[in-house]
Amino acid sequence: MENVDTLIYAGWVIPVEPDNTVYSHHAVAIQDGKIVDIVPSDEAAHRFLPRITHRLPTHVLMPGMVNTHTHAAMTLLRGFADDLPLNEWLTQHIWPAEAACVSPEFIIDGTQLAIAEMLRAGVTCFNDMYFFPDTMAEVVEKTGIRATIGLIVLDFPTAWAANADEYLQKAQVVHDKYQDNPLIQFALAPHAPYTVSDEPLIKAKALVDKWQVPMHIHVHETAHEVDEAVKNQGERPLSRLHKLGLVDSSLLNVHATQLEQDEIELLAKQGAHVVHCPESNLKLASGFCPVDKLLKAGVNVALGTDGTASNNDLDMLGEMRTAALLSKGISGNASSVPAHEALRMATLNGAKALGIDDVTGSLEIGKSADIVALDMQTLETMPMYDPISQIVYATSRDKVSDVWVAGEHLLKSRALTRIDIHELMSKVTAWREKVDAAVEAAANQTEK
Amino acid sequence: MENVDTLIYAGWVIPVEPDNTVYSHHAVAIQDGKIVDIVPSDEAAHRFLPRITHRLPTHVLMPGMVNTHTHAAMTLLRGFADDLPLNEWLTQHIWPAEAACVSPEFIIDGTQLAIAEMLRAGVTCFNDMYFFPDTMAEVVEKTGIRATIGLIVLDFPTAWAANADEYLQKAQVVHDKYQDNPLIQFALAPHAPYTVSDEPLIKAKALVDKWQVPMHIHVHETAHEVDEAVKNQGERPLSRLHKLGLVDSSLLNVHATQLEQDEIELLAKQGAHVVHCPESNLKLASGFCPVDKLLKAGVNVALGTDGTASNNDLDMLGEMRTAALLSKGISGNASSVPAHEALRMATLNGAKALGIDDVTGSLEIGKSADIVALDMQTLETMPMYDPISQIVYATSRDKVSDVWVAGEHLLKSRALTRIDIHELMSKVTAWREKVDAAVEAAANQTEK
Repeated sequence: MENVDTLIYAGWVIPVEPDNTVYSHHAVAIQDGKIVDIVPSDEAAHRFLPRITHRLPTHVLMPGMVNTHTHAAMTLLRGFADDLPLNEWLTQHIWPAEAACVSPEFIIDGTQLAIAEMLRAGVTCFNDMYFFPDTMAEVVEKTGIRATIGLIVLDFPTAWAANADEYLQKAQVVHDKYQDNPLIQFALAPHAPYTVSDEPLIKAKALVDKWQVPMHIHVHETAHEVDEAVKNQGERPLSRLHKLGLVDSSLLNVHATQLEQDEIELLAKQGAHVVHCPESNLKLASGFCPVDKLLKAGVNVALGTDGTASNNDLDMLGEMRTAALLSKGISGNASSVPAHEALRMATLNGAKALGIDDVTGSLEIGKSADIVALDMQTLETMPMYDPISQIVYATSRDKVSDVWVAGEHLLKSRALTRIDIHELMSKVTAWREKVDAAVEAAANQTEK
Repeated sequence: MENVDTLIYAGWVIPVEPDNTVYSHHAVAIQDGKIVDIVPSDEAAHRFLPRITHRLPTHVLMPGMVNTHTHAAMTLLRGFADDLPLNEWLTQHIWPAEAACVSPEFIIDGTQLAIAEMLRAGVTCFNDMYFFPDTMAEVVEKTGIRATIGLIVLDFPTAWAANADEYLQKAQVVHDKYQDNPLIQFALAPHAPYTVSDEPLIKAKALVDKWQVPMHIHVHETAHEVDEAVKNQGERPLSRLHKLGLVDSSLLNVHATQLEQDEIELLAKQGAHVVHCPESNLKLASGFCPVDKLLKAGVNVALGTDGTASNNDLDMLGEMRTAALLSKGISGNASSVPAHEALRMATLNGAKALGIDDVTGSLEIGKSADIVALDMQTLETMPMYDPISQIVYATSRDKVSDVWVAGEHLLKSRALTRIDIHELMSKVTAWREKVDAAVEAAANQTEK
């Protein structure tokens, strides 16, 4: 008998790799935070001597989901300004609110709220872009989730830095501090082509190459963005990024609702990734990412919720479903993005985009035990003909019962093990009034 | 002090009528199944002497949702065939499965499963189209939910009837039996223009006029349907229905993804209704209902989930959110279908389409106490800037805590009071194998 830390028996195991596969009555064995084997349940009973055993006969085990584009702390602005187009939403509501409120305290509480929401929804890794990445790294470390933290770069001043050079200097300091944390990696995160000029983009790319980390940037989010760039700079943003040497396998193009066929081919050829955020794109009427064409061209497409201010949740099960449904509608092909492909986009494709698919994104021997259990013995998930289809089209996040990250049990029968939910909720309640007051005070200041 | 049966105190009450209104700290008083008043909580405490008091300070009360297009019993086919276009899905999978399986027993268990799912998700009324409406009425009566039951009409034989005349004769019998039930009304439900010929359509319309009930029919679901009609009959289906005298305020046009501007104007002028099923239309790649244009033209647009075989849930909170997001994306206008309009579509517009807006669809004095309570004191629904926005964009159905229909408490702290959920789940589990076996047997029969 082989000693292992944990053995989880499940009704079904969906490994994601191999694709479109379901193992019935299997068990996952975990040692030192890693998956050491996935075997039929009766074999497991004879082979392993686990310290901890979980028996989940009515559950599916699948890889933890990778939310590949978030602004976690903005969860404190959930529902702050809705039913508005991107430009007005950003310049007249979100940016003023951020200018008035964003501080390390905002980051601490907002990020913790986001992480709590994501863990309760089966997300084990997220890729963030926001301010105070140092503070965010502290929160991530405390909660035990896996994250890629964006080192934001902008031309203009915010509470975090005064100019592009300071953003880059601070990026260096934060990066060096967390070098040895296995759950945290960084990405360079220039906000967008229209908010970052050439020089800082080139400098950010140098750091990407030096540190071998991803480049996380909003690209072609709206037709307006592309039109303005063509008008003012004489070229489309993606073409500019390519001239600056940014378009390669380190690049995460977030949104990408405006893509010509030659741009799709460029992304495929260069091995660049697209992060599709269908619900945010719909809510802000930003346009439609041509997911069907991208997949056919061989581009790796991952999924993200975007921030809750434009979604308004961090629900990757829902995002996966929306992606599957929307691609069918937009392409006019009901077979576009079938269930197993949507599941892959929400897991392994995200890990691939972040360059950590050797570590997470699927249930494979040697990978980190980043695992989600979903209870399928509920009215809403019955009858069950096909577990993958059921998860994508019929399972909502309240069915997530347990979550492990690197083998640590972070959600246990829906209870968070590292986060005090009542303390967090009372802090969040207080933020609602703080945000309103700060926004009002700032508006009064401006009027004077 | 005034004696009342029930008094529900809530953090917020969203009446839907008046539109876009939220009452903070109000209470709803119920007597004989009807709403007798909605007043500030402190006033309620001095005015009413309730037999039962509910205190829900962290909850929103809103009207029960009206799911205006379902095939309830098909819930037994949830996830049976996914990622397929409408025609192939219907003719090669769903119709053969129905031919092999549909029986009164199928209707009993499938309808009960659907009603249980809907009550747990805040739906208090549904508008159904399926076989064995007599059996369905029995189930509806047992569960206490409100329903409009479609009296289906088809040209071809099914387990329920052999030909159009028999469908119509049986309709008469079923209709007469339930005349006095306050929670059940019937609708004539010819399946679609392409499955019902002129004569039965005219006869169905005569019954609609005689009984003063709705006409429930799939219209212009796909471009294929419209193209075939133009090719074979020389006109678009809606034009044919209009010539037959069907297009008036009794008509529920379900799906309506293909509408020319003059057709939109026709619907507006005639007071006909559209039932928008965004998730089913996306999943089957059927096309996009022009909701923004319809609303601008003054057409009443209600919402439906369609059957779970093409959705795959009966979640009207989700459907409402999808409708709000999709209309923004399709119209290119982020202000299209704002949260309060989506909420109205999911409640009062449904009641209006069914001709029962004097009874349900909003929280108003004199209307039936069809009420839903949602718990907003959860991580996923915080912070709360705007309760209506929060419900539409961030609240999933697991937050539904309590449901009343005509004042009867059918869901109590998430427990169904009239349905034995464990017995139901074991029946549903058995159906999965029965369906597979029946489909296989039928396929073998065909091969011989």
